[in-house]
Amino acid sequence: MEELFIIKIGGDTLNNPSTLDGCIETIAKSGKKVILIHGGGKKVTELAGKLGIGQQMVEGRRITSAETMDLCTMVYAGLINKNIVAKFAQNNASAVGLTGADFGCIRSKRRAVGAIDYGFVGDVHSVNAELFTKIVSGKSVPVVCSVTMGEHFELLNTNADTMAAEISKVMAAKFETKLIYCFEKNGVLTDINDENSVLSLITETDFDEMKNSGQISDGMIPKLTTAFNALEAGVKWVNIINSAALENCLNGENTGTTIQNSWSN
Amino acid sequence: MEELFIIKIGGDTLNNPSTLDGCIETIAKSGKKVILIHGGGKKVTELAGKLGIGQQMVEGRRITSAETMDLCTMVYAGLINKNIVAKFAQNNASAVGLTGADFGCIRSKRRAVGAIDYGFVGDVHSVNAELFTKIVSGKSVPVVCSVTMGEHFELLNTNADTMAAEISKVMAAKFETKLIYCFEKNGVLTDINDENSVLSLITETDFDEMKNSGQISDGMIPKLTTAFNALEAGVKWVNIINSAALENCLNGENTGTTIQNSWSN
Repeated sequence: MEELFIIKIGGDTLNNPSTLDGCIETIAKSGKKVILIHGGGKKVTELAGKLGIGQQMVEGRRITSAETMDLCTMVYAGLINKNIVAKFAQNNASAVGLTGADFGCIRSKRRAVGAIDYGFVGDVHSVNAELFTKIVSGKSVPVVCSVTMGEHFELLNTNADTMAAEISKVMAAKFETKLIYCFEKNGVLTDINDENSVLSLITETDFDEMKNSGQISDGMIPKLTTAFNALEAGVKWVNIINSAALENCLNGENTGTTIQNSWSN
Repeated sequence: MEELFIIKIGGDTLNNPSTLDGCIETIAKSGKKVILIHGGGKKVTELAGKLGIGQQMVEGRRITSAETMDLCTMVYAGLINKNIVAKFAQNNASAVGLTGADFGCIRSKRRAVGAIDYGFVGDVHSVNAELFTKIVSGKSVPVVCSVTMGEHFELLNTNADTMAAEISKVMAAKFETKLIYCFEKNGVLTDINDENSVLSLITETDFDEMKNSGQISDGMIPKLTTAFNALEAGVKWVNIINSAALENCLNGENTGTTIQNSWSN
């Protein structure tokens, strides 16, 4: 099967123009088939601040009022997405910016109101693999932002890490799919203050032990859980890397943290 | 040749959610091949006001600083565009939101600095007819906002009326192309305060006479000039209509103002 990389860019890598440009250049020049996923929460928070629209986060997720959803649509689907697309063009590569509403390519279900009402927040339930296959086979890069379309055709704010994993799972049927989480740290760290404490490999057994011992940071737990789900669904491997290592990672080198099923060799 | 409608929605039709929804529903239900074009200047002005970013218009065109270009990208390519795309889905139609940067589909040239420096403003110089043909043939509606990509791969604010005409001109080689300008007035009026003063037909000879006699409003002159250019390039007909007449217009009825080459029968 042909190789396909699903790359999620987040954190400071997305917020810093020069690291972002570096990633885009690396992807464009690699000639590899890539689907790129991004959010952009920091810029939404900044814009909300300037407009005096209060923001509330619960466990790292944004409570999304209708007003805040408009900001997400402006920042994710407009400002960040289209500048990334233009940057691909600058590197002689074709790209198309997408939300889940475009071609109805990523449908979600609005999160049920429980103890917390997240508002306009959705969880992915279907991905149009055929459409993504067509775009990557046509040598364009789909640049997907963290906005999906709900059951009532409403735009919904959606976690970009999860979107990347869900897209990977669906694409794994057609491609040798590799999921890369690209951010400003060197990988999964055993000591969050020490960039040299990278775990080069995590199996599910390791992960369970680390969760029990409290050795892993809260923010990393959902990302790793998502990664293991993706592996179980047939994704070939998952890497969590520093954006500086992206080129090596695309060339098949083990960089950062490799997430591996316990039964892999 | 197969029929293709290039529809530009502007003015109050775009700003009023119920008239906008009505247009989208009409287009979706018509089953016709359509490319939809929109701007959204009023919302940019509103957002700029809230953010305290001063705006300056010269002859109806926005002086576009880098900061204002970011607002245009947020509002045109994000907020307005993706909500239109979702509304098509709600009407059981597939749509994809595009800027000129996506697939590099509409390239422009940044306007030269003359007496006025318009900033990040571009004029269309090429349209990827093959891409638009592929999308409409796949039964999706391209929803194109008024952002194009310049020679240096920069995002540029571009007049939506002109974009609609330029897309029409290129598509006329492959389709029987009809260009519709859809807004809140009943057509070209001889008395701007009287909605019953619609001119049902304008030939280029009429237009020249009306310009000389001052019988036509300044705002309408560039739209009509663009329309005549489109006709000369092979576009089948151009109509300027009230959005309420869109369904009739798609069904081939002469509504609003029909712009016609002097030599047409």
